[in-house]
Amino acid sequence: MAERKSDRKNEDNLPKLVRNIVASYRRDQITHRIGETFLPSRGKIVEILDELRQLLFPGYFGHKVLGEDNIQFHVGNLADHLARALSEQIFHCLCYRGDSEHNACRDQARRIAFEFLARVPRLRKALKLDVEAAYDGDPAAKSFAEIIYCYPGYYAITVYRIAHELLELGVPLMSRIMTEYAHGLTGTDIHPGANIGKRFFIDHATGVVIGETTVIGNNVKIYQGVTLGAHSFSKDERGRVIKGLKRHPTLEDNVTVYANATILGGKTVIGHDSTVGGNVFLNMSVKPFTFVSLEDPTLNVKLRSKKLRQEQEKEKKSGRQTN
Amino acid sequence: MAERKSDRKNEDNLPKLVRNIVASYRRDQITHRIGETFLPSRGKIVEILDELRQLLFPGYFGHKVLGEDNIQFHVGNLADHLARALSEQIFHCLCYRGDSEHNACRDQARRIAFEFLARVPRLRKALKLDVEAAYDGDPAAKSFAEIIYCYPGYYAITVYRIAHELLELGVPLMSRIMTEYAHGLTGTDIHPGANIGKRFFIDHATGVVIGETTVIGNNVKIYQGVTLGAHSFSKDERGRVIKGLKRHPTLEDNVTVYANATILGGKTVIGHDSTVGGNVFLNMSVKPFTFVSLEDPTLNVKLRSKKLRQEQEKEKKSGRQTN
Amino acid sequence: MAERKSDRKNEDNLPKLVRNIVASYRRDQITHRIGETFLPSRGKIVEILDELRQLLFPGYFGHKVLGEDNIQFHVGNLADHLARALSEQIFHCLCYRGDSEHNACRDQARRIAFEFLARVPRLRKALKLDVEAAYDGDPAAKSFAEIIYCYPGYYAITVYRIAHELLELGVPLMSRIMTEYAHGLTGTDIHPGANIGKRFFIDHATGVVIGETTVIGNNVKIYQGVTLGAHSFSKDERGRVIKGLKRHPTLEDNVTVYANATILGGKTVIGHDSTVGGNVFLNMSVKPFTFVSLEDPTLNVKLRSKKLRQEQEKEKKSGRQTN
Repeated sequence: MAERKSDRKNEDNLPKLVRNIVASYRRDQITHRIGETFLPSRGKIVEILDELRQLLFPGYFGHKVLGEDNIQFHVGNLADHLARALSEQIFHCLCYRGDSEHNACRDQARRIAFEFLARVPRLRKALKLDVEAAYDGDPAAKSFAEIIYCYPGYYAITVYRIAHELLELGVPLMSRIMTEYAHGLTGTDIHPGANIGKRFFIDHATGVVIGETTVIGNNVKIYQGVTLGAHSFSKDERGRVIKGLKRHPTLEDNVTVYANATILGGKTVIGHDSTVGGNVFLNMSVKPFTFVSLEDPTLNVKLRSKKLRQEQEKEKKSGRQTN
Repeated sequence: MAERKSDRKNEDNLPKLVRNIVASYRRDQITHRIGETFLPSRGKIVEILDELRQLLFPGYFGHKVLGEDNIQFHVGNLADHLARALSEQIFHCLCYRGDSEHNACRDQARRIAFEFLARVPRLRKALKLDVEAAYDGDPAAKSFAEIIYCYPGYYAITVYRIAHELLELGVPLMSRIMTEYAHGLTGTDIHPGANIGKRFFIDHATGVVIGETTVIGNNVKIYQGVTLGAHSFSKDERGRVIKGLKRHPTLEDNVTVYANATILGGKTVIGHDSTVGGNVFLNMSVKPFTFVSLEDPTLNVKLRSKKLRQEQEKEKKSGRQTN
Repeated sequence: MAERKSDRKNEDNLPKLVRNIVASYRRDQITHRIGETFLPSRGKIVEILDELRQLLFPGYFGHKVLGEDNIQFHVGNLADHLARALSEQIFHCLCYRGDSEHNACRDQARRIAFEFLARVPRLRKALKLDVEAAYDGDPAAKSFAEIIYCYPGYYAITVYRIAHELLELGVPLMSRIMTEYAHGLTGTDIHPGANIGKRFFIDHATGVVIGETTVIGNNVKIYQGVTLGAHSFSKDERGRVIKGLKRHPTLEDNVTVYANATILGGKTVIGHDSTVGGNVFLNMSVKPFTFVSLEDPTLNVKLRSKKLRQEQEKEKKSGRQTN
């Protein structure tokens, strides 16, 4: 009975609650899209990514046994559906920018979708070279299938290569939604605007950041925790950062960057065939064939007497373990 | 035929297998919840998060074209469903703690759910300021939509702000399930107990840890890999850490912390308008208006003769590349 | 009308598009599996992981109220379904390797599935000790349920323990798909080949890498961003790394490694009861009872006059903030 009463009281509150929430939409214009007709769908864009992966790696993804007899139908179906889904979402992304009229916008979206799909064979070539680079560079890789099925770094590179094409074709919002989705899944944040050469490999792939204006050559290999970032931002008179400058480093061909190294700055160039060691923090250029590493840090090494420590812990109620 | 036989043999094993597994439940009491009636559902709590995002950012999430004519109905529906789903899960979280009687517990859960929903307008205000901070602080941000749709740091902050309210209202398990879900998606681990001011921005957002007793002022900006952590734990006489002390640092207004810096300790205060550089490891306080950076480390820079290296590699079967 | 025309023009392109994509499959043999009959399914393997979690932690996962009366049926059902699903996927993983004949392969897959399920009670014992280690080691842990429901480090360890058994039973591809799935969800990359003792705890769990040949004793605790990695690779005459050597370190009993420390090398042994401090970079062994930390780095600490800075910013249109 008490429950029933509180039930009624709460239900009385609902209309007021709703009025207050709706009123809050009227006050802030940034955080809602009420009254705007065209909305890209993050969910649909993720579905597009999944279907693209089936098209790029047939037989690996999509639960279907494929052979000479059915491959044409399978790809036809997939490409047809992708063309429609891509057109629809590209249309929403373009119109969301509000820089085009409705019908022209729809035509442009279709053109971009087909232009993108026409690049799939080229994408496949690039992705094949990336698999080989991963296999050659990682002693733990037992097969190509292992890399394609489950390497997060390879997934992040796949999505980056897709998103980079879409950015070039003029769909920045979709490309960013894609790379940030991969970022969430893999811990690897590659901005679609970065320029990355052939045979790129990211090992372990977690905590990696590759900024918008980074340039990477061929045969480059980086490890977990590597940041290729900006080291200072020019600001306008209102203290807001200025957009559009080259802010991230350049890595030339055959460079290797080991775990947790940080390389910063738009003018920083790591010359070809160089190696940057683990944990190095670098904001200046180095010549080709250079090997950069930390000086061995002076470590504090102390031996602890365990018995002594145990006795101390018994005496005090709370022993203190410094870090 | 051989297959059939092995089939039968294996099926004979199933009852024994099941008996052994059930027996193992009886031995360990921690890792099962057999015989306990009330269980919160992680899946349902994630659904609540998704619906809350539709309520907080109408038109961005939820695949629905919204306008003046239907917004009232949309919000009414959503709020009604959320009130029920939240009540149900809060109820399970409270009763799971076993600190209340059944009906009283249900009433309390409803009160908390409605109290939480009444805070949605305030939450929206805070989240609007966070979008603006991201836009002002990141040169790569091209639009507010890009941030709301796809920045993982913004998602982590959104979930933190929701979870912090729920923790304040007395539902710690639900708040933790929410932030750890966001942690999984974004690589950013913000404990719901942290106190975070207005206009907070996390760039790149991967590998960030913000501990339970951290205090952060207004206009603070942090980068990937930053840890605001504990540097030593007081332990009880059995060597277990003591819970409930202030263990994490305080960052005052207008502080910036660059990539992979680590700031430790409950007594550490970073004074307002200070900057902590990349990779800095800090376990002491600094005054306002301070700029802390690493001394330029002595780097080992060696030029490598590539030809020499290639010849050596031909001679030996396995060349050794030191790191 | 214009739309219709472009529609037709685009549809004319589809067959050509499809022909080009199919032709690209013929050129590259690595990135497709057309004409191969047996394919493991990443999606199904993830479902297996979810069901195993229901079997390992009954009542926590699976949305079912369990009691003495129904537990036998619940486990019977679950084990039966898991035996079938595991057999099927193990079969595809084995035959994908092509090292066995069809029927023999199916029998072997079943044997392995049942052998794995017979190890569930032992797995539960190990996982119970891991929960206790997390509770004892983390001041923020308020209950066992919190750890089981939502700690990403605990999830990564759970999946590792499952995958390690499957690797031992001879199913490397499935075990790797599992750990890389957990890697994606948690930011913690534990190779299934690592050997890890009892009562293992990873706090915050983001950005952790534990390599294939790592050996970890009992009562070990590590923090976010820790790498237990390889520091150099032996290469063959074609410059490709040689596979199969011990490349990753050994941590003996009761070792603690704090945030963002990097320990490298197959010959590196951290003696029992030692502590490695935050951000330490270590590629040599240390004795038992050792405490290793960074020398306090010489930090650049500069006070900034805010007024001065504001005046300068007014003068210039773009002030420069160095990092």
